[in-house]
Amino acid sequence: MDFRLSEEQELIVDSYRAYMESENWEAYFHECDERHEYPLRWVAGLCELGFDQIMLPESHGGLGLEQPCVTLMAVYEVLGRYGAPTYVLYQLPGFETVIREGAPAQIEAVMSTLGTGEQIWNSACTEPGAGSDVGALATTYRRENGKVYLNGTKTFITSSAGVRYLVVMAKSAEDDTVFSEFFVDMEKPGITLSPLPKLGLRMDSCCEVYFDNVELDEADFFGTEGNGFNRGVSDFNFERWLVGACDYGTAISAFEDAVAHANARTAFGRPIGRFQLNQLKIAEMQIALTNMRNMLYEAAWKADQADGTFDPTAAAMCKYYCANAAFQVTDDAMQVMGGIAVASEHRINRIWRDLRVDRISGGTDEMMILTASKGVSRGYRS
Amino acid sequence: MDFRLSEEQELIVDSYRAYMESENWEAYFHECDERHEYPLRWVAGLCELGFDQIMLPESHGGLGLEQPCVTLMAVYEVLGRYGAPTYVLYQLPGFETVIREGAPAQIEAVMSTLGTGEQIWNSACTEPGAGSDVGALATTYRRENGKVYLNGTKTFITSSAGVRYLVVMAKSAEDDTVFSEFFVDMEKPGITLSPLPKLGLRMDSCCEVYFDNVELDEADFFGTEGNGFNRGVSDFNFERWLVGACDYGTAISAFEDAVAHANARTAFGRPIGRFQLNQLKIAEMQIALTNMRNMLYEAAWKADQADGTFDPTAAAMCKYYCANAAFQVTDDAMQVMGGIAVASEHRINRIWRDLRVDRISGGTDEMMILTASKGVSRGYRS
Amino acid sequence: MDFRLSEEQELIVDSYRAYMESENWEAYFHECDERHEYPLRWVAGLCELGFDQIMLPESHGGLGLEQPCVTLMAVYEVLGRYGAPTYVLYQLPGFETVIREGAPAQIEAVMSTLGTGEQIWNSACTEPGAGSDVGALATTYRRENGKVYLNGTKTFITSSAGVRYLVVMAKSAEDDTVFSEFFVDMEKPGITLSPLPKLGLRMDSCCEVYFDNVELDEADFFGTEGNGFNRGVSDFNFERWLVGACDYGTAISAFEDAVAHANARTAFGRPIGRFQLNQLKIAEMQIALTNMRNMLYEAAWKADQADGTFDPTAAAMCKYYCANAAFQVTDDAMQVMGGIAVASEHRINRIWRDLRVDRISGGTDEMMILTASKGVSRGYRS
Amino acid sequence: MDFRLSEEQELIVDSYRAYMESENWEAYFHECDERHEYPLRWVAGLCELGFDQIMLPESHGGLGLEQPCVTLMAVYEVLGRYGAPTYVLYQLPGFETVIREGAPAQIEAVMSTLGTGEQIWNSACTEPGAGSDVGALATTYRRENGKVYLNGTKTFITSSAGVRYLVVMAKSAEDDTVFSEFFVDMEKPGITLSPLPKLGLRMDSCCEVYFDNVELDEADFFGTEGNGFNRGVSDFNFERWLVGACDYGTAISAFEDAVAHANARTAFGRPIGRFQLNQLKIAEMQIALTNMRNMLYEAAWKADQADGTFDPTAAAMCKYYCANAAFQVTDDAMQVMGGIAVASEHRINRIWRDLRVDRISGGTDEMMILTASKGVSRGYRS
Repeated sequence: MDFRLSEEQELIVDSYRAYMESENWEAYFHECDERHEYPLRWVAGLCELGFDQIMLPESHGGLGLEQPCVTLMAVYEVLGRYGAPTYVLYQLPGFETVIREGAPAQIEAVMSTLGTGEQIWNSACTEPGAGSDVGALATTYRRENGKVYLNGTKTFITSSAGVRYLVVMAKSAEDDTVFSEFFVDMEKPGITLSPLPKLGLRMDSCCEVYFDNVELDEADFFGTEGNGFNRGVSDFNFERWLVGACDYGTAISAFEDAVAHANARTAFGRPIGRFQLNQLKIAEMQIALTNMRNMLYEAAWKADQADGTFDPTAAAMCKYYCANAAFQVTDDAMQVMGGIAVASEHRINRIWRDLRVDRISGGTDEMMILTASKGVSRGYRS
Repeated sequence: MDFRLSEEQELIVDSYRAYMESENWEAYFHECDERHEYPLRWVAGLCELGFDQIMLPESHGGLGLEQPCVTLMAVYEVLGRYGAPTYVLYQLPGFETVIREGAPAQIEAVMSTLGTGEQIWNSACTEPGAGSDVGALATTYRRENGKVYLNGTKTFITSSAGVRYLVVMAKSAEDDTVFSEFFVDMEKPGITLSPLPKLGLRMDSCCEVYFDNVELDEADFFGTEGNGFNRGVSDFNFERWLVGACDYGTAISAFEDAVAHANARTAFGRPIGRFQLNQLKIAEMQIALTNMRNMLYEAAWKADQADGTFDPTAAAMCKYYCANAAFQVTDDAMQVMGGIAVASEHRINRIWRDLRVDRISGGTDEMMILTASKGVSRGYRS
Repeated sequence: MDFRLSEEQELIVDSYRAYMESENWEAYFHECDERHEYPLRWVAGLCELGFDQIMLPESHGGLGLEQPCVTLMAVYEVLGRYGAPTYVLYQLPGFETVIREGAPAQIEAVMSTLGTGEQIWNSACTEPGAGSDVGALATTYRRENGKVYLNGTKTFITSSAGVRYLVVMAKSAEDDTVFSEFFVDMEKPGITLSPLPKLGLRMDSCCEVYFDNVELDEADFFGTEGNGFNRGVSDFNFERWLVGACDYGTAISAFEDAVAHANARTAFGRPIGRFQLNQLKIAEMQIALTNMRNMLYEAAWKADQADGTFDPTAAAMCKYYCANAAFQVTDDAMQVMGGIAVASEHRINRIWRDLRVDRISGGTDEMMILTASKGVSRGYRS
Repeated sequence: MDFRLSEEQELIVDSYRAYMESENWEAYFHECDERHEYPLRWVAGLCELGFDQIMLPESHGGLGLEQPCVTLMAVYEVLGRYGAPTYVLYQLPGFETVIREGAPAQIEAVMSTLGTGEQIWNSACTEPGAGSDVGALATTYRRENGKVYLNGTKTFITSSAGVRYLVVMAKSAEDDTVFSEFFVDMEKPGITLSPLPKLGLRMDSCCEVYFDNVELDEADFFGTEGNGFNRGVSDFNFERWLVGACDYGTAISAFEDAVAHANARTAFGRPIGRFQLNQLKIAEMQIALTNMRNMLYEAAWKADQADGTFDPTAAAMCKYYCANAAFQVTDDAMQVMGGIAVASEHRINRIWRDLRVDRISGGTDEMMILTASKGVSRGYRS
């Protein structure tokens, strides 16, 4: 056993730490959050450090790391510690999906922004009438005169106002057991967006997206026709783990703010961190952070042993546990900080709202519980 | 025993219910919240129904109710059920304090707005360096040439941007064991306000208030000199219970939205309210609401038996339990509602933020725990 | 509203309090628990005070109380406060069921022990293959030559080693949709008992009961043939509430022991009740007790308004909330008391084990959650 | 990073697994528990496998393992999985303490039982008036005529009825700031034992121990005079971690029993493991086990990097988190198993009682919280 990062990994972490220390990024994040703007300048800097290459195969410009998932985890951890909105980065480690599934032209389209930090693609599945129950989705495609026409509505689509391409799940109008995905250029006619106001995660867009007879070509299928579910599901596991990694990292910043405050602030003649009710919170927060860290690194390490494939049970556990534990850590941190946390522009205010969303988006707590439980039970069938 | 409201109380509740049904108040509340505005039009309507007279002695225009506290509770309950921002009403039942403690001119000043719904006064105690530790406050007053000069900074002062008068706690510059209160006209020179951004409760103002050599008269003492602490503490109990009442009422609206949603929304072929994980939340929410309701009504009923005086232990328990339980109910409701709750302008979004603040403001959870525990333990000394 | 007991109720409570103070009952309870014996001497004394008449109609020797359920509640409360094993009393308030449903001879059989405190009857439903899923039960009855023959196995049957009569649920061997109950004299041939070792509740018996072609008469039906489910279900609600009442009462004794200990025991120079981690527990325990008390009294009061019929939703909530809250209170009390609680013969040790059982027996937590949730949701259908 | 055991470690684990599979040890454990007997035959078998040599230096017969702490952890894990009472093993890995601190004769005395599994020594600190507040202890030693006389009472002393030697903490009768330890032969005159009944952990003894003018020699000091606290504290960390390891291991058996039961038992036509309320418990149990495992292995691995020294903060976290999480897992498992768990001789019944004790003994939850919090806060002082 070995719980250490390798020297190479430590050097990579150091480079991100130096970047985060290079300016007062918090001011920039606050501004982007207020304006509901994607923090492009910050992301661009990350990409200069190679962030979007961590998960890429070497053949496409990847860094050729021995443990890419563990390394990605370490990067999320150090970024989160500085209160960075790592949730805006979801699609960047996902370039690899496009390389695996996409047609050459699609790959080229996505890879054209490599290193720039620009939002380029995301996928769209959820619909007003189909959340966790993916099978109920109503968006359809039908062929006519050599073209493919897409109709339907997607909702809660993250990054949708910022990306050029959206991978859209739809079912065949002829056979509703056939689910396929399309690589849709958002500049096509017939697509409209309606932004959704959000409790948190405001540096990324979230829209309802309407497809009104959008004309596509056969070349616009993403992956094989009829393979939509399989594609989505395999990436789900990575994404769920990624949400956990993001939430854990962010919670560190809330925790560190709170403990520093508890040491500095005095009441009744001593630091408030020496009152037992705060000590209880500090111990509980540290325990939660330790648990999240170990669970996430272990899942990453296992994925690295399996060519980057995340175990579904572990991924569901990571998302469920970390989204809840990170929120609880932040809520406790808020309580330790008192009035400063709720009546100021302190970052904890933003982080607290951001984290709440993650218990719903990207697969609800409830779906994670069911997925995890099924995976666990399978091991104990007689 | 009797758990029913009296007929008179039911009639009063009916009148408020009718008022809440009389228009789509939610649209108005949403607008006020967005604009950070006090919902004067709504409060004025409440006062027409006699809201600000419930707690008043008959001699000053009170309604002469047999159980004013229980009645007030019932009103908070019905208002909350409609998602109303009852937190903006804190000072209205508090006119009685002014009558009890104030000089005739002070009483007249406050009573002049009776029935209008306008914000007229609040009290100010917390300071940047003195939150729960009231004894540490640094605002002072000193006499010079027949005048009294006030200096210091108060922070997290609710309603401070809206009221004409602020009752300010200060200690004597000559003797720092003497704490007194002043009835300060906010239009006096030397007073400045700095608004604080807030996580919630945005229909009421919250500011840092600076007193720079503010010139007062002997007539501006509020109550007896040196009696500041006692005055504040006796009203604390009422206010703590009031926060509990407010939180409980508001949580009802979140709960009812969620259960109605769970009945209406289907997934995997049935209403989501029939999935056990949601059923667990529904049962837990109902239990919490039942507990809050009983605890609050019992405390109110006991206060009515004691001329309106709230027991400190009961008041601390009400605030602690209800602020937390109401938040948890709302958080559960949010989870049941899923994406609609976090990516829309649904009122639950606002209510969830509002309720979080109440675990800190008006006496933190931690202070409530200590107060309640001390009261409980006292009964078991040998 | 009125949260007081009536004078008559207070007098009744006083009589039970005096009885509990009349000797060191704890020594007797400890002995009975060690020996797995029914505390007959104690129960007999309760019956002299009229305990088994509280719920009876006046026509059969009842006390003719205005609020029998509220009164019963108050009696459970005072008994519990002294650490009494009120769980052994379940069948005594249930004589009323027999009067309502039984044939004259059955009524006479049960009423013959009125006032003696002896265990006389209980009902038996659960089977090895049918717990919560009552419909799956496999015990059958069939008619032959004017007799009725009962075959099957019941398990986890409370009091079964102590009672003369057991009301046994069985389904017709001819038609498995017909469920009937029989009033079975346990001295009949073909009945054997196998005692089950239990975690707690050791002053009452618990057995597996085997019926091997037990010969019954038509006169042994309990209630109408085919009405078995309905009978059982209507009494379930009363019994569930009763479990809640029992658990709440018992938790009071653990709580009071703990707070008294916290006041008396010193460490690091002060009473341990002044350390915040203990203060948190004391506040939480008191809140839970307050909630249980109000929930139980309210349900009892409502039942008194409805001729003794308990609302199923309220009953399920009472059992679920109180079984869990009472256990938590006792667990917290144990923690406050430290080594004394876990390494001595202190009653908290016994109470803690007893309470755990009630989250499973008499309807599991899980069944209570589902019942409560369904009842709640029904009120919000559009 | 690497989350795997080494091949050597896997082989060691295999040997213990084979031992546990070699007979139905559960029957033996049940019998020992009922009789309150130390399971010597089982422990002797463990020692044949080298259990008591894992932590020993090679110079004294140790196995010379590269990662002794990680290896010990892996052994506790596999033993616990079989429901073994690993709590009786506490003193065996502690031979190393004696070697480090003891005089040659003391070392020889303890090492004489190496490999036999017999209980040989333990330490005694807690007193009736001094639990967590070690400074308050009242046992004293005084010198007279070249002898040392020990007087006082120790309580809750684990293994005290079984060991030949007890290391007893006492303070100098002349100078109450001087705390020393003695290596006391329990056969000396003046020592009496009073066994304490215990909620759990019944295969090990627990007594109150009275020292009435027990005559000792200068050679009986354990370690340097005045160094009592330091010795105790350094070993505390190891012991705390060990309690966590024991609790985690045991919880695995409860969990596996419950999941197997949930797969096998049907109700309402399907395995109860497919009801969401059980799925929730299964997911939560697995998460808790994952967290415990990682926390414990990480602490062990860090200790192996530091010559076997456990970090105090990590050790306190391990004990606090694992004692609570393991109990919760077992309580959940009990709930999943229903009546079988509470009304039978199923091992979960025993395990549940055992685990509760560990939140109090060996350092209460409350002391662990304070220790952990202090350690955490220290890292955030400005």
